Amino acid sequence: MKSEGIRKNNSSKVKLSEFEILNSFNRARQETNDEIIVPGGDDAAVISLPNRLVVCADIVVEGVHFSREYFSLSQIANKAVVVNISDLAAMGSTPKYLLAVITSPGDVDLNQLLTELDLAAKGFGARLIGGDISSGKDFSISITAIGEIDSKRRVMVRSGAIAGESIFVTGPLGGASMGLKLLQNQALPQSSDEKDAIRAHLEPNTALKAGLLISALGIGCAIDISDGLLGDLEHIAEGSKVGINLTDVPIARGASLSDALNGGEDYELIFTASMPEQILEAFKKAGLTAPYLIGECTAMPDQRHLFGKTYQPKGWQHFN
Amino acid sequence: MKSEGIRKNNSSKVKLSEFEILNSFNRARQETNDEIIVPGGDDAAVISLPNRLVVCADIVVEGVHFSREYFSLSQIANKAVVVNISDLAAMGSTPKYLLAVITSPGDVDLNQLLTELDLAAKGFGARLIGGDISSGKDFSISITAIGEIDSKRRVMVRSGAIAGESIFVTGPLGGASMGLKLLQNQALPQSSDEKDAIRAHLEPNTALKAGLLISALGIGCAIDISDGLLGDLEHIAEGSKVGINLTDVPIARGASLSDALNGGEDYELIFTASMPEQILEAFKKAGLTAPYLIGECTAMPDQRHLFGKTYQPKGWQHFN
Repeated sequence: MKSEGIRKNNSSKVKLSEFEILNSFNRARQETNDEIIVPGGDDAAVISLPNRLVVCADIVVEGVHFSREYFSLSQIANKAVVVNISDLAAMGSTPKYLLAVITSPGDVDLNQLLTELDLAAKGFGARLIGGDISSGKDFSISITAIGEIDSKRRVMVRSGAIAGESIFVTGPLGGASMGLKLLQNQALPQSSDEKDAIRAHLEPNTALKAGLLISALGIGCAIDISDGLLGDLEHIAEGSKVGINLTDVPIARGASLSDALNGGEDYELIFTASMPEQILEAFKKAGLTAPYLIGECTAMPDQRHLFGKTYQPKGWQHFN
Repeated sequence: MKSEGIRKNNSSKVKLSEFEILNSFNRARQETNDEIIVPGGDDAAVISLPNRLVVCADIVVEGVHFSREYFSLSQIANKAVVVNISDLAAMGSTPKYLLAVITSPGDVDLNQLLTELDLAAKGFGARLIGGDISSGKDFSISITAIGEIDSKRRVMVRSGAIAGESIFVTGPLGGASMGLKLLQNQALPQSSDEKDAIRAHLEPNTALKAGLLISALGIGCAIDISDGLLGDLEHIAEGSKVGINLTDVPIARGASLSDALNGGEDYELIFTASMPEQILEAFKKAGLTAPYLIGECTAMPDQRHLFGKTYQPKGWQHFN
């Protein structure tokens, strides 16, 4: 799209490079196949997906979700992709296509960024098929992720939990939060735990394989932990009208209970299941790390118990 | 997604309102139907579309694509939606679903903006099904549009033009560019032409009906004019390896030839056709304003003729 010309001093330069970059990026990716009828580079991409589509969009903004002081361009691209793939994972869907919209204050190597986004997408079996680049005061990456899920498969939703079901989480929590604090304090990592925590923050992973497995098992309720365990459990409690009774919380080594409960950004999955032994067996069979059984959904919708005591859910929305 | 907490002073406030706004927005839109299996508000939306999908993403950024000095929030929402619907129109596809990712420096009424985006989407028969809101230095709206196109229908692409075909454009050009200049000069409109030009800039329309019609007629090449007539014709010339011989340019009343050739943002469609009389007849039958026959594609890929003289294509990418 043409710019308003309001920032006349630099917009022509940024626009020229945007034009060239997107053009050369798209020229290099003109392969079509049975699914991609028109690849990126036209007004729109045209795709054919036989199954149901799963779509989501999440943005990462410099100064809000990442800092170039400690994130490399490759890590920024990975994070932008992971936060979206994680949402697809929580629905039990296979990632297929991504669109990336980038704003840049002019000091971002857009060619490298597109290459890194493409690499990150491919790492999850997905493909970058379109997007837009604009100048802006912020450096930001907004990704739309499109996945598919077999029409015969149950869709996992926040409102799918049933009283009496066990609550699982796919990995230990709080590492990303601990890592952020270390990075903000510019502390050099003193131990392997601290190195792991910093890596958890800079290079978040996603429980995609676990999401696909539990979806295949017919699980009805899952959510990814982006806002913190208690905050995201709240979405399940409110959506499913169940109470929460937590008896265990897996904490990343070196992190605090508070990091694990409210830290967020771990991108593990929470899910609920009626037959916990079968779940553990299925994960073992699939060669995946066993999920942690952390508690159960109860028939008292207002109940919020942690280690036998009432808690006030305080996710990120109450941070001060 | 949780914020890094880097901007601690305002991020908690923005995040709280983001949480509440998205929640209440999504709660109000929980209707499902045969196509919408899971509406917005979960980790992702799940939809079922039998036909091929057409997907694109475009962003509008304050100071680059619009200014709040003269755009109302409703006009900003309309523009964000139109620039994307216009891309779907150029592919001949029916708009279905939109995702909106918004960044705000904190001074945007997000509730009103979401309502305006929803209204604008509905105006094109589409539905807003998801997205994200983040704080940021920029006020920006990135939209991903998902349309569908019948699997039996030919897809219109930039590379689909054939030497000898006539070139059409769906409306007079240059109005939006003229309007922008009037707005930037803060000139009060002196005539109905000037009022129309300002409206063309603030409230761009899209040739969606024309796009659907020419797609139904089996047209193979179309593009929307976002970057200016000559700039977008260049995409056709390069993609289709044809020359361009322009014999006429429809100019919006009061605009200059330069506005019409290079102004951009008119969001009309360019398309090529082998049987011009049938095209004009079909538009008449459909009750749509007749498109303008402006020239033809030639077998000399390097030819760029305007009114019999060679021209250098200079779209926005050469603006200085």
